[in-house]
Amino acid sequence: MYDSSEPRGVFAPLLTPLDSDLNPDGDAFAHHAAYLLENGCHGLVPFGTTGEATSFSAEERRMLLETLIDRGIPAERLIVGTGSTAITETAALSAHATDLGCAGVMMLPPFYYKGVSDDGLFAAYSQIIERVGDGRLRIYLYHIPPVSQVPLSYDLIGRLIETFPNQVVGIKDSSGDRDHLLGLLNRFPDFGIFSGSERFLLDVLRRGGRGCISAVANLIADQIRDLYENWEADDADERQEQVGHFRDRITPAAPVPAMKTMLARRYGHEGWERVRPPLTLLTREEREALLNRVDAAERLPSTG
Amino acid sequence: MYDSSEPRGVFAPLLTPLDSDLNPDGDAFAHHAAYLLENGCHGLVPFGTTGEATSFSAEERRMLLETLIDRGIPAERLIVGTGSTAITETAALSAHATDLGCAGVMMLPPFYYKGVSDDGLFAAYSQIIERVGDGRLRIYLYHIPPVSQVPLSYDLIGRLIETFPNQVVGIKDSSGDRDHLLGLLNRFPDFGIFSGSERFLLDVLRRGGRGCISAVANLIADQIRDLYENWEADDADERQEQVGHFRDRITPAAPVPAMKTMLARRYGHEGWERVRPPLTLLTREEREALLNRVDAAERLPSTG
Repeated sequence: MYDSSEPRGVFAPLLTPLDSDLNPDGDAFAHHAAYLLENGCHGLVPFGTTGEATSFSAEERRMLLETLIDRGIPAERLIVGTGSTAITETAALSAHATDLGCAGVMMLPPFYYKGVSDDGLFAAYSQIIERVGDGRLRIYLYHIPPVSQVPLSYDLIGRLIETFPNQVVGIKDSSGDRDHLLGLLNRFPDFGIFSGSERFLLDVLRRGGRGCISAVANLIADQIRDLYENWEADDADERQEQVGHFRDRITPAAPVPAMKTMLARRYGHEGWERVRPPLTLLTREEREALLNRVDAAERLPSTG
Repeated sequence: MYDSSEPRGVFAPLLTPLDSDLNPDGDAFAHHAAYLLENGCHGLVPFGTTGEATSFSAEERRMLLETLIDRGIPAERLIVGTGSTAITETAALSAHATDLGCAGVMMLPPFYYKGVSDDGLFAAYSQIIERVGDGRLRIYLYHIPPVSQVPLSYDLIGRLIETFPNQVVGIKDSSGDRDHLLGLLNRFPDFGIFSGSERFLLDVLRRGGRGCISAVANLIADQIRDLYENWEADDADERQEQVGHFRDRITPAAPVPAMKTMLARRYGHEGWERVRPPLTLLTREEREALLNRVDAAERLPSTG
């Protein structure tokens, strides 16, 4: 049985399809969410960096979340990205997701000002928790300094856990830095730690972490799930290596448009290929090179 | 007569006072706006970086702008910061300000994703202009790479001016880089160029630019106005240097809380001292050192 009070396993930060006016396509979004839950994902994270969360208004984010739930996606399978630059907006989005019964929220720090202090970030999270004012709130911190440019220090994380043990329950580490992730797992053994990459899934599971929230789970959730289920198998390291290769075929292109291009082909729906500015479509050449890399790899016999 | 179709002169990016719950204090905000218009400012820019714009939700920004206008601040004296990470939100805020008769909007590029292309930023501004769909829209680009981490290249600016000559009418250059500012003035002689710092006011005026949008105009608008009025005087360079000294006394402390501390003393209203997280108050020691620096300087005889 899935225990929504302690989410664990393979989570996909959902890509977000757009209509021809670049508005979100709720139908295609809910269809993709259902597909992933039936094909490997324990849970889903609408509105991460992969999902272009910050490219949508608060109102658009609320409507898309309601669409998922209206279409039968179980709220207890969702950890909802609610971070923004404004504590009032983050609080409002977090209250909305909590009210709908979501398992948790994934929260960027306010990310406009750079070089802010731990005290300032602590005050921001404190204010948000106070403004939500709901004991059901479960926060997963979102550490993604390559994009946000606002890192969350170990000291800050420790202080938040100590002060809000029932609210600040986990973290997604998208630093891309394995040593940082191992440091988290070592310092905070009871914290709900997810790697932001499937590459580090074994690292996480072997040290008592929860799993991964992996962008490429939008594409290969079944393979990542297979690794998750076999993490104690003799060939687990080989499986991990195999799973890691997929990302290498994607990332020569810009990752969000590349993954959307792959989904457009899977679903035969061009709405998947669109991105909100400032992201841009792949060029025709980039698109062909991407599909060639992926197809060539699939024709190779497995080395695992 | 003030020509609102071609704003020029000394503009203050308004600091934003807060009540004890850290919600915006519209009364104190409007009072400050009126004070500045009576004491040196040609115009005002609510919701810049100095005003903690991105720390407020879209709804809070709309309400504060309506409060200013309801309290009698002339809309034609306002250039309203409307930038956000989402083109839909920026478009909505820009339509709102334009509808209210504001002279223009000051627009950050979408700033969450870093390393985005000129094509992506061009598409973002194009989408916003299309979504606003109002010929009265006047955009001042907001170039502030030290904070936004998303610079606007000369190429991008040129392309926007060429494509949208009636909408993209100016820029605030807060790069802090004099050479960058001089490059703008040289390349785009008919563009509405404001320096983001009073330090470069003479540079701007001598090369046909419009003026400055200066944070310290919240505190010394009268002195900056005096420089503006006397930019062709024999002692203009000495005046410029004098004006520049004020910032040196402020910036050893964090600038937004330091300037708010100064306003709290001017108005005898502690709401001015508060900041929204992630910004933090000055410590007692920082506050004392700041006030001592400013007071000591005021006791000196003028060297100008």
